[in-house]
Amino acid sequence: MSYNKTASITAETINPKVKIFDYEPCGEIARHAERLEQEMEKSPGSRPFPEITYCNLGNPQALGQRPITFFREVLSLCDNPALLRRDETRMLFSPCAINRARKIIESMPGRNSGAYTNSQGIRSLREAVASGIAARDGFPSRPEDIFLTDGASSAINLSMQILIRSQEDGVLCPLPEYPLYSASIILHGGTMVPYNLSEDGDWGLEIFEVKRCLEEARIAGLTVRAMVIINPGNPTGQVLSITNQEEIVEFCRKEGLVMLADEVYQDNVYVEDRKFHSFKKVARSLGYDENDISIVSFHSVSMGFSGECGRRGGYMEICGFGDDVMGEIRKVASVTLCPNIGGQILTSLAMDPPKLGDGCFENFMAEKEDIRLSLAKRAKTLSSAFSSLEGMTCNKVEGAIYAFPRIHLPAAAIKAAKAEGVSPDMFYACRLLDATGIAVVPGSGFHQVSGRNKAAGTCHIRCTILPGEEKIKEMIPRLKEFHESFMNEFRDRS
Amino acid sequence: MSYNKTASITAETINPKVKIFDYEPCGEIARHAERLEQEMEKSPGSRPFPEITYCNLGNPQALGQRPITFFREVLSLCDNPALLRRDETRMLFSPCAINRARKIIESMPGRNSGAYTNSQGIRSLREAVASGIAARDGFPSRPEDIFLTDGASSAINLSMQILIRSQEDGVLCPLPEYPLYSASIILHGGTMVPYNLSEDGDWGLEIFEVKRCLEEARIAGLTVRAMVIINPGNPTGQVLSITNQEEIVEFCRKEGLVMLADEVYQDNVYVEDRKFHSFKKVARSLGYDENDISIVSFHSVSMGFSGECGRRGGYMEICGFGDDVMGEIRKVASVTLCPNIGGQILTSLAMDPPKLGDGCFENFMAEKEDIRLSLAKRAKTLSSAFSSLEGMTCNKVEGAIYAFPRIHLPAAAIKAAKAEGVSPDMFYACRLLDATGIAVVPGSGFHQVSGRNKAAGTCHIRCTILPGEEKIKEMIPRLKEFHESFMNEFRDRS
Repeated sequence: MSYNKTASITAETINPKVKIFDYEPCGEIARHAERLEQEMEKSPGSRPFPEITYCNLGNPQALGQRPITFFREVLSLCDNPALLRRDETRMLFSPCAINRARKIIESMPGRNSGAYTNSQGIRSLREAVASGIAARDGFPSRPEDIFLTDGASSAINLSMQILIRSQEDGVLCPLPEYPLYSASIILHGGTMVPYNLSEDGDWGLEIFEVKRCLEEARIAGLTVRAMVIINPGNPTGQVLSITNQEEIVEFCRKEGLVMLADEVYQDNVYVEDRKFHSFKKVARSLGYDENDISIVSFHSVSMGFSGECGRRGGYMEICGFGDDVMGEIRKVASVTLCPNIGGQILTSLAMDPPKLGDGCFENFMAEKEDIRLSLAKRAKTLSSAFSSLEGMTCNKVEGAIYAFPRIHLPAAAIKAAKAEGVSPDMFYACRLLDATGIAVVPGSGFHQVSGRNKAAGTCHIRCTILPGEEKIKEMIPRLKEFHESFMNEFRDRS
Repeated sequence: MSYNKTASITAETINPKVKIFDYEPCGEIARHAERLEQEMEKSPGSRPFPEITYCNLGNPQALGQRPITFFREVLSLCDNPALLRRDETRMLFSPCAINRARKIIESMPGRNSGAYTNSQGIRSLREAVASGIAARDGFPSRPEDIFLTDGASSAINLSMQILIRSQEDGVLCPLPEYPLYSASIILHGGTMVPYNLSEDGDWGLEIFEVKRCLEEARIAGLTVRAMVIINPGNPTGQVLSITNQEEIVEFCRKEGLVMLADEVYQDNVYVEDRKFHSFKKVARSLGYDENDISIVSFHSVSMGFSGECGRRGGYMEICGFGDDVMGEIRKVASVTLCPNIGGQILTSLAMDPPKLGDGCFENFMAEKEDIRLSLAKRAKTLSSAFSSLEGMTCNKVEGAIYAFPRIHLPAAAIKAAKAEGVSPDMFYACRLLDATGIAVVPGSGFHQVSGRNKAAGTCHIRCTILPGEEKIKEMIPRLKEFHESFMNEFRDRS
């Protein structure tokens, strides 16, 4: 009986789609940072910095952001509904949280927060989300159109699963992009159709450029089905102007493209002259209803003021699809049975937070504003610091949680990178990490330099603005010192 | 500017893979039951039964199963770590839960249970799971091989994503099957290769039958990459004998098939003469190590004594894949960033529960045994009741949470079903629901009747054993009365 492993799985026989995508925010740099951290635990003082500063991943609570008290109290009570029957609970939880938890538990199957729910999520929680959307936009939202999801990632994957039939189906995505999009499109067997954001135009979206990309894709035989727009932008930190948003809506409507609106940073806007407007609101304001345009909006509790990444809560609102399509989407959602209940609860709380008159309103608002103001301050400090460095330019961080400065590297640095077989931005990011412990993601991780991109060859890093204000103050001199010595080393050789 | 929706999404232009699979546990019968429930809310007394009894979905807590106190206390504390700093907490939580929660929180990024974790899950929780597996099997388990997941469903989807390259790749699956498998194989573009379980052999697995199916598939040009085995069985309720398990291991080893071992019902075994043995343990006991056979084992907190379905916690243990393949799997896992933290915590608690000497050990064991004994009693009562009915036979429910009786329908009933354009088992299940409010899933939902199955044309229903003992006592007379009148109606016409 000979041993036969021919059909078994190896790097050669794995699904090749898995092999061709990359996912840099959790990739090379993250792994190198973890190795350094382990090394420093074993031999403290072995590196010229006290700790690794993880600016590679948008992970607020890992960098010290405090969770919102009201959210955690409600979650804690819903996990252990027995607490709702005990008097002592009033010593540890606010009446506000107790009331909300009671209301949530009463709407749950089995009244104990451990049963499978409807695959779209618990109806009452979807009603809370829909009412939050309606209050935000001034246009109605229906609970039937809301799918609660395990974070935005699973919602985006589900959308691609529904849309993509074959490699002949294309999806327009921005460059630089959040690499979940290319990964998901590749895994679902489709073709990404990249369009370039304009760095010179504050990372805005130029319709003539998108049109050019769409037309080229059509000439190449692709059926372009949808367009991804990330607003506020990741990795770019831009907030689109309303005029720009209106142009995009008109464009998608005219071209029959489903809008996939990544709006997970809607609560992260830091500048006075820009506000967040959902694409659905912009479309409705232009007079377009469900019959005119199809829009899927993604949101999550990972960012914003909640920063509850690990909880995997989110929603998508699907407007302008027929009932039969909605039925199919529900069926696909039911294959994984339901989104996790903790994430469902959190999403309802974030979209339907305490109101004026609720006992905990003031405290909630204070915590929320503290986080927003502090992030705004950090956004400014960090982008100014980057801009002050030789050969670096950094657009204003209007929203989201990233600075995305461009670095004009000396020719010798580019040559050295080539000699090591890495991209120049990866070369810079690795040097930065080794010298300072600051982990950032090279722009190439967002495919800034790929394809026929007119910005090909430009060099960027994405750095989150998430370390606390004190930490950022410590970080900046380390960053400056490294950058100067790096530039000196390679300028002299050029 | 004409409106062009040609590329937009309709039932005709949706990904056709989405359209061809069905998922009956959340399908037709479930929707009909929900409609009835809404109707009864509006007009109470409109139906000859007091409520809908949802026996269609394995959803223990929706049917009254109580969560394990220790689990919920730990979850509640981890959600609100501020409680760990308050004295009053001791009045509401056991010291045992407080200690465990403290330990968990200390091992978390940012120490507040809201940050993204490692994509495989938090290391310390994976260590707890690995130690639980080692204690269960008597063979070592490594935290590097553990992936914490959002329930077993997402783990199964991830495995299919890794394994399936094209329609030429096949995966052996049992018939009757849990329909997640066919859905996932179809969505990932592969081909399901069904093998029949033997109803006459207590739903055991006959190697010659699997071999026949494998060979036919190979002749048809398929590369069969893996074999799914569900033990204890869903929907069949069987527990495989150790001899049968050994045969299966030898077979997969010889044929170079990856074993996909669905072991989510490992804590649901009700008969003295059968025990749960993991396939990894069976393989290791036969002397086979990672170089001999590749095994992926799926487990979750949804079933067993925890019944925490809505929490979406689970793990997969991957053994016998190379480092490069493991790297690719980690990359795919990182696209959805990380499994939800509540589910991660619960999974660690279920696999590493309180031990003798821990303050809450007795209470934990009492709760656990109560649930198991009660389920064992319900399994017996329900299968006996089914077997006592005219034309029904029901194998013993040895494990899992389902009875899967076979119904020999009168010819006139089969004719009537045909006239209505539904399968005979769907016809029976609909009649049952309308008359009694009891929702079950027809056997065809598990593809019992599909393809070249020698059992094609047999008629089954799957009924969970989850309603409480009192509820089951009420259900049985309703079931009997319906069945008698159904048989009378159609026997006389035959």
